[in-house]
Amino acid sequence: MAETDLRQRMTFLAEIDGLKTVARQSKIADGSRRENSAEHSWHLAMFAVVLGDLAEGVDVPRVIEMLLLHDIVEIDAGDTPIHAMSDSAAQEAAEQAGARRIFGMLPNPDRQRLMALWHEFEEAESSDARFAKALDRMQPLLLNTLNGGGTWAENGVTEEQVYARYGPVIRRGSEPLWTYARGLVRQHFQTLDAG
Amino acid sequence: MAETDLRQRMTFLAEIDGLKTVARQSKIADGSRRENSAEHSWHLAMFAVVLGDLAEGVDVPRVIEMLLLHDIVEIDAGDTPIHAMSDSAAQEAAEQAGARRIFGMLPNPDRQRLMALWHEFEEAESSDARFAKALDRMQPLLLNTLNGGGTWAENGVTEEQVYARYGPVIRRGSEPLWTYARGLVRQHFQTLDAG
Repeated sequence: MAETDLRQRMTFLAEIDGLKTVARQSKIADGSRRENSAEHSWHLAMFAVVLGDLAEGVDVPRVIEMLLLHDIVEIDAGDTPIHAMSDSAAQEAAEQAGARRIFGMLPNPDRQRLMALWHEFEEAESSDARFAKALDRMQPLLLNTLNGGGTWAENGVTEEQVYARYGPVIRRGSEPLWTYARGLVRQHFQTLDAG
Repeated sequence: MAETDLRQRMTFLAEIDGLKTVARQSKIADGSRRENSAEHSWHLAMFAVVLGDLAEGVDVPRVIEMLLLHDIVEIDAGDTPIHAMSDSAAQEAAEQAGARRIFGMLPNPDRQRLMALWHEFEEAESSDARFAKALDRMQPLLLNTLNGGGTWAENGVTEEQVYARYGPVIRRGSEPLWTYARGLVRQHFQTLDAG
């Protein structure tokens, strides 16, 4: 391995530190502040560690790697909140350019390997990507139920809208995960109605 | 899988959200604020993704999992700064109790598996644990060189002390990683001397 090669990898590792400054809409569980995309990615990877058997035919270490890098493009493109109207073509172009710039800092074979994993996540067709997408939807759902409604309360999102916006993606990755999540959502809105 | 089992796993995933509020001494690369242990764990896992070939005989997915969970005990025990004098017996006891409480929230086999991985990291004997420890030392070293000296500048740590405090752990995990790191440290202190 050439020294240049190692220097390129360190430059990449220094660059992705920027993900710690990308703010998401979701608040952390105690509600004290918004989550950043780096700690969100860590949390998601831990979801894969402990929920990996909820989807059949999934390569858990591969899903973990996909989740670790799935948001790195946000360093250039920013986060896209689920409950916001956004220009999806412009966002998509910014993310593609971000992927080329940031993964492009790595030497091969990692450059191609990480870029391919990110594309696979975005396409959401393989079992691994469908499960990764399901966890990426499940984690903010869990946070919202923990911190009193979070982005649902802030955006006036109804119970029916939660089912519509989270259900298809979670079910597509894992049916038992959605069964559980739906119960959490029902309980959350029941408590609100009773309050 | 019983529903209780899934509820226990979700309770664990909610509990470990607390790692996002554990502050470390190191600042993030842009120097704007201290790093938290959750985003640190994400960054470390990415170090393993792109530096995994720097150590022979290492199971990279296993190292990634070890790094994802290595700091979870800090939710109860707090972070131990490398340049501080601390009561290591009391810290060790607090971490052991934290591991029993937090990993103990999981059903088996994950409870035993994650607890064993954490112990293996702490013991720092296996190749996987030695490499994980090396990355855990390498990441703050890289951050300090990026943000103008960071914890070295704050604590009046000399170049020789850096070699003594980081060198043995990094070398023990990967000789080529230490060769590179030593060059970074040398360059950092040369620039300071010239400034």
